[in-house]
Amino acid sequence: RINGDRLWDSLMDMAKIGPGVAGGNNRQTLTDADGEGRALFKQWCDDAGCTMGVDTMGNMFARREGTDPDALPVYVGSHLDTQPTGGKYDGVLGVLGGLEVIRSLNDMGIKTKHPIVVTNWTNEEGTRFAPAMLASGVFAGVHTQDWAEDRTDAQGKRFGDELDRIGWRGDEPVGARKMHAFFELHIEQGPILEAEGKDIGVVTHGQGLAWIQVTITGKDAHTGSTPMPMRKNAGLGMARILEKVDEIAWSHKPHAVGAAGHIDVYPNSRNVIPGKVVFTVDFRSPDLAVIQDMEKRLHEEGQKIAADMGLTIEFEKVGGFDPVAFDDDCVSAIRGAAERLGYSHMNIISGAGHDACWINQVAPTAMVMCPCVDGLSHNEAEEISKEWATAGADVLLHAVVETAEI
Amino acid sequence: RINGDRLWDSLMDMAKIGPGVAGGNNRQTLTDADGEGRALFKQWCDDAGCTMGVDTMGNMFARREGTDPDALPVYVGSHLDTQPTGGKYDGVLGVLGGLEVIRSLNDMGIKTKHPIVVTNWTNEEGTRFAPAMLASGVFAGVHTQDWAEDRTDAQGKRFGDELDRIGWRGDEPVGARKMHAFFELHIEQGPILEAEGKDIGVVTHGQGLAWIQVTITGKDAHTGSTPMPMRKNAGLGMARILEKVDEIAWSHKPHAVGAAGHIDVYPNSRNVIPGKVVFTVDFRSPDLAVIQDMEKRLHEEGQKIAADMGLTIEFEKVGGFDPVAFDDDCVSAIRGAAERLGYSHMNIISGAGHDACWINQVAPTAMVMCPCVDGLSHNEAEEISKEWATAGADVLLHAVVETAEI
Ligand SMILES: NC(=O)NCCC(=O)O
Ligand SMILES: NC(=O)NCCC(=O)O
Repeated sequence: RINGDRLWDSLMDMAKIGPGVAGGNNRQTLTDADGEGRALFKQWCDDAGCTMGVDTMGNMFARREGTDPDALPVYVGSHLDTQPTGGKYDGVLGVLGGLEVIRSLNDMGIKTKHPIVVTNWTNEEGTRFAPAMLASGVFAGVHTQDWAEDRTDAQGKRFGDELDRIGWRGDEPVGARKMHAFFELHIEQGPILEAEGKDIGVVTHGQGLAWIQVTITGKDAHTGSTPMPMRKNAGLGMARILEKVDEIAWSHKPHAVGAAGHIDVYPNSRNVIPGKVVFTVDFRSPDLAVIQDMEKRLHEEGQKIAADMGLTIEFEKVGGFDPVAFDDDCVSAIRGAAERLGYSHMNIISGAGHDACWINQVAPTAMVMCPCVDGLSHNEAEEISKEWATAGADVLLHAVVETAEI
Repeated sequence: RINGDRLWDSLMDMAKIGPGVAGGNNRQTLTDADGEGRALFKQWCDDAGCTMGVDTMGNMFARREGTDPDALPVYVGSHLDTQPTGGKYDGVLGVLGGLEVIRSLNDMGIKTKHPIVVTNWTNEEGTRFAPAMLASGVFAGVHTQDWAEDRTDAQGKRFGDELDRIGWRGDEPVGARKMHAFFELHIEQGPILEAEGKDIGVVTHGQGLAWIQVTITGKDAHTGSTPMPMRKNAGLGMARILEKVDEIAWSHKPHAVGAAGHIDVYPNSRNVIPGKVVFTVDFRSPDLAVIQDMEKRLHEEGQKIAADMGLTIEFEKVGGFDPVAFDDDCVSAIRGAAERLGYSHMNIISGAGHDACWINQVAPTAMVMCPCVDGLSHNEAEEISKEWATAGADVLLHAVVETAEI
């Protein structure tokens, strides 16, 4: 069993870096706070006797040696970056849970045949630079590194420049490492495990996603002196499309979801009819055909709404991944570990995207989930109990040890 | 007749200060660019032999003496501040048209009995600091100065501090001046004069306005892993209310208008269901009862939409003025001037708010309007012809001279 108190203390120590405004965190990717969080993680890994490698996308790899020089490592980990108003556990639990596996093996003096490597993947959240899971995507060969480094934030700053700025560009080529397996521990970020009273979610699948950035162009004009029939109100066009997004997602219940989290209105002045609105629609489903249908309907309905209102509309796909089925053996290792340890468990589909979804393309992969209070995540009030964190890390330990072999 | 070429050259010179990104201007109130524009205007007034007074709200008053020491001045003017993506004429034409009246009288060696004062009112646009027409409102006793100075911009900067920062706080008490009359020349900012082929709008009334800031609070949550029935999507609530705003305004056609130009979404991250949206609804009509009805319906419908969606909603009135009927004698002076000069003209209701709407409460007031291309304003592409500007300033000259008496 892992040391739950130590894991919890590390979670709380990491949460001191990049504090939010309401008890959570704002440690967005490639900010100074991200740099500080990385330095603390490296310190802890050094203290645990690991050697740290960093690739040219800033992905971090802390290695504990195995007994067989020819055996590929078993990887564990997640991400340390957060949403602008994020929680203390989203991603962090997976990284520090991985570190706790190594610390516990050190305590117990257990050597594994395969090395164990704890990873921190860069820019999982995708808030500052879309898409999400950017650096694990480059690792898995889904994106080219050049394209990834050219992603810009809302201020126009490039990913590549910001990575240099915080000093965390390493020298390893991205994706050169080969993995025996990859395991990611993560909070559920949804309500199912808590509602079902289960300690552990055995993640069999992950739903897919499409991020479609919509740009509606109308005509800036005076809110007072422009007669209603002459208006080309891009804000009203956005409102009508948001209603459609909701309708489209509900039409596929119980499984599909849809919303827009990002909306920018121009020139954003009280007495100017918006001439331009840019917003991003987020559609998800475990079923690829459903995602494709939602995208198609957004294009069709959006075009129709815009045409009726004299607006122009453009769509740009700024993120997307297909639904994922995780590796049977890795999933079984997690289920078996929960079983052996006496934790209640159930199969679950991940509603969020995770680095594991990309790594699954290049290595046998699975995930273990623990509940979170009220299913709340991407909110500073995100909360879990020490017991839930401990159970998740225990299962991770056993799955990793079984796979890395003693 | 005024000198149309000189007026046009001054308009173009002023437009060089605080240039926009698309041929217009971004000379928002109390920015450095506003300070530069004020300095240029003062220079021109000095050159025309005027004495400049500035009050403690930054309102500027350039005085040309009259022949009767006991006669109250006739005031003319408007504002030099612009929208963030504003035109070159909105407000500026009224200030520089007033200056052109003085320059023309100087050229012709005409002395008037009443002094003539050209004004530049601070923060007419209301974009940086709501409400619009802030400093003329304090002048007319509608707002207290303390309240006005406490208005903050999107960065939390106070009006009073920014006025000090740009160095344009004068020493005159606000509103101490008494006026014989006030005339404001302005572009129409709407399509009527151009469509009717008229040179001059004789402004008999101004429509009233209500700015209602709406705050919708839901719950930040993950766009992927939060099931549709558990969502409290403040962005979707905003969308539904924008649709209602449009419906409410149309229900009062042909005269009412409604839209939201300002919309801020929090935390504005692609994968976070918006937990909060703040936006400002702008309703206008020449009929007070209609404005009141629209406000009431916004409250009722907004509350209903929010309740149905599990959202909370708050309303704050951040700007408002009642419809205005301008002074009969001043209106007649404008109509008579247009008639005498042979310009085609028609009565018109101002769709926008103007400093004249507040000054009308403390002095006999009227406005003269000239057409603008396609009725477009609050847009960098706002355009007028030199002929239209000249006609407007000619009418202003004649109305002012008639009222100031030779
Ligand atoms: N786990 C998580 O919140 N990842 C961010 C990517 C996503 O939006 O699903
Ligand atoms: N004239 C003008 O655009 N004034 C700004 C106040 C308003 O929104 O009407």
